[in-house]
Amino acid sequence: MRVEILCTGDEILTGKTINTNYSHIARRLVELGLGVHWGTTVGDDRESLLKAFHQAGERADAVIVNGGLGPTVDDLSQEVAAQACGVELVLSDPWMARMEESYARRGRVMPPNNRKQAMLPANAELIDNPIGTACGFAVTIGKARFFFTPGVPREMRRMLDEEVLPRLLAMSGIAGVTRLKRFHTFGIGESRADQMLGDMDVFKADGGIKLGFQAHYPQLETKLALRADDEAALTALLAPAEAEVRRRLGNFIVAEDDQTIEGVILGRLLASGSTLAIAETVTGGHLAARIAPLPGAERAFRRATIARDLAELGATAVSPDQAAVVAKALRASSGASHALVVLLELDQGADRPDMGGTICIGLADAGGAVTRQARLVGGRDWVRVGTTELALDCLRRHLLGLPFDERIDFERR
Amino acid sequence: MRVEILCTGDEILTGKTINTNYSHIARRLVELGLGVHWGTTVGDDRESLLKAFHQAGERADAVIVNGGLGPTVDDLSQEVAAQACGVELVLSDPWMARMEESYARRGRVMPPNNRKQAMLPANAELIDNPIGTACGFAVTIGKARFFFTPGVPREMRRMLDEEVLPRLLAMSGIAGVTRLKRFHTFGIGESRADQMLGDMDVFKADGGIKLGFQAHYPQLETKLALRADDEAALTALLAPAEAEVRRRLGNFIVAEDDQTIEGVILGRLLASGSTLAIAETVTGGHLAARIAPLPGAERAFRRATIARDLAELGATAVSPDQAAVVAKALRASSGASHALVVLLELDQGADRPDMGGTICIGLADAGGAVTRQARLVGGRDWVRVGTTELALDCLRRHLLGLPFDERIDFERR
Repeated sequence: MRVEILCTGDEILTGKTINTNYSHIARRLVELGLGVHWGTTVGDDRESLLKAFHQAGERADAVIVNGGLGPTVDDLSQEVAAQACGVELVLSDPWMARMEESYARRGRVMPPNNRKQAMLPANAELIDNPIGTACGFAVTIGKARFFFTPGVPREMRRMLDEEVLPRLLAMSGIAGVTRLKRFHTFGIGESRADQMLGDMDVFKADGGIKLGFQAHYPQLETKLALRADDEAALTALLAPAEAEVRRRLGNFIVAEDDQTIEGVILGRLLASGSTLAIAETVTGGHLAARIAPLPGAERAFRRATIARDLAELGATAVSPDQAAVVAKALRASSGASHALVVLLELDQGADRPDMGGTICIGLADAGGAVTRQARLVGGRDWVRVGTTELALDCLRRHLLGLPFDERIDFERR
Repeated sequence: MRVEILCTGDEILTGKTINTNYSHIARRLVELGLGVHWGTTVGDDRESLLKAFHQAGERADAVIVNGGLGPTVDDLSQEVAAQACGVELVLSDPWMARMEESYARRGRVMPPNNRKQAMLPANAELIDNPIGTACGFAVTIGKARFFFTPGVPREMRRMLDEEVLPRLLAMSGIAGVTRLKRFHTFGIGESRADQMLGDMDVFKADGGIKLGFQAHYPQLETKLALRADDEAALTALLAPAEAEVRRRLGNFIVAEDDQTIEGVILGRLLASGSTLAIAETVTGGHLAARIAPLPGAERAFRRATIARDLAELGATAVSPDQAAVVAKALRASSGASHALVVLLELDQGADRPDMGGTICIGLADAGGAVTRQARLVGGRDWVRVGTTELALDCLRRHLLGLPFDERIDFERR
């Protein structure tokens, strides 16, 4: 089955808005094994829309259209869809009732121009939008089924998962329900993760789970996309696979699904009644900024000190010894149970792709201080970002009792 | 003239990579008044590429193709372009020589598969790539001129500006040279900026300058895109317009062109031999992280302290008085010439779109302390981001001797 994505709207066409809706829809299609065959972008323009609908209707079996369902005159999707189908726009009484009810519930009167959002092609199948006034709909143009979705990302995402993808799976003859399991790792690159997992039978063709990776330096996201007849079968398929992935990726897994590494750290601090103080240099606040602003951090985050001059932190050099000295002193002066110190010294000279930095991390708690030395290379920003993540990961590992100095792929020694 | 953008490659088609090349090309076309009519995305697939070339060749006058020029077998642009033109691929001796010379200069031998990058359709016009091994080229397919550009962003951007856009301008009958002037403001929204500038004659049709906006909350970018016969005419057209824009946007302009607000602040601190200390609460290091890591900041940035507990900063409440007290104390204890304090108290409860925060900023220097109180609304992250920028802007204004408490559009009182 050939699936296309058709994005509409002047903001997208002219590049004013980066088209992240396209990427999201495409990724979900790939995760479910449906794939994506073609992408089109056109503006809020009748002639282009009509031509795009007809051309996609000749090439594809299914087309996901995004945008153009708003209440204003420049939103043309329903109108041009009706034209492409050769039918009139008619008022959808059920959707009109839903919108009026939604406004009434909030004690407001529906503006008259919202009525336009309930005008659908006469032959359209209504698609629910539980969180907005733009309903979706489906019509057939040429040989393809077209699914119209709203441009507001959260409305599109929900409609895609709950309404559109199940219909596409049914069309494709792929039965059942789907799930997406995600692991976030720090310290291994995509090719190494692929080597670590790629030989698992469950990830082979017809193994039932599709394995995918998405690199967001310095983290890597490993995705397991599943399809099964029902939820019970999904769980039966996933349980052994996720246990095996956890075993193989091991300590490199910093979080799962919607968790973050900083959320895991804060959760652990709060659960154990611990408190944290931080001192950092060239990372300049980026480390503190990952933890201090979190909801709940007011109960665990004691203080961070940032300085570019080592003496300001009480250090004389970027060395493991000095990181330990500063960490112990910071723990004492702050009264926190844990003190994390990150000393970073960048190579001399102007920024360049092979600029590196020497990192010394010190972590003190009631048991004393441990240290970690590393070298990262890749330019000023790259080193700073990697250093911040390395420091967070050292703290996570320490709090969880995991090995503190496992070598990471980005590291030079 | 109708211009299309055709992006190729599986990483883009499947959404694995967000298509920022598309947005960049589209924006540049719009800035030059060429506009963009249609966007297409296809994968590394012969059949799709050939169909996409033919369909675009029927719709458009010019097509910018991005990607598929690499040395590996999945890069198909040259091959399918030759097929669409009905010609053979032939070796470009000039490009082969350029690549060999480039490798030789770095003391390396060119890998054999790079030869593929010098194979162009027999009728192609070579387009220079001064910073990579993927040359561009142009051919005619159907009624459109196709310009092939590399997928590596920095190579594409340079080739677009130096080679492709001048050719498109020449094709369109638009003569001359172009320039883009940018202003970065904080504190005014897009509609207000449009009101402030929209009536200038030079921005009207045929006024010679195209006015555009790009919102990157909390900043707004105002863009003046110019075209004139030669550089002297460009300067003559731009000089009065940019002076008038500076007059109208006034103190809200925080930086121009490639400058940043933090760069302006650091420059001013260094030029006046001043030093800076910071204390912050819920912004949690985000403020320090804008200045402390900058090259050169080691000479001006003294220290930042971050805490979630006001007492840890020596404050008893989020109030202007307390912001002044903490700022003065921080100045004394740090030895910095300037101390910036940002106290932020978020509304109670869980994060929500109408969550707000009360902000008290204190700034102490040799002359005493000044304060600024504000309220921002829009959810936890929105308030934090806006607060960070407001604090930077207060510091910028103070260092430049500008009014410290001009009301901003995002502010509630």
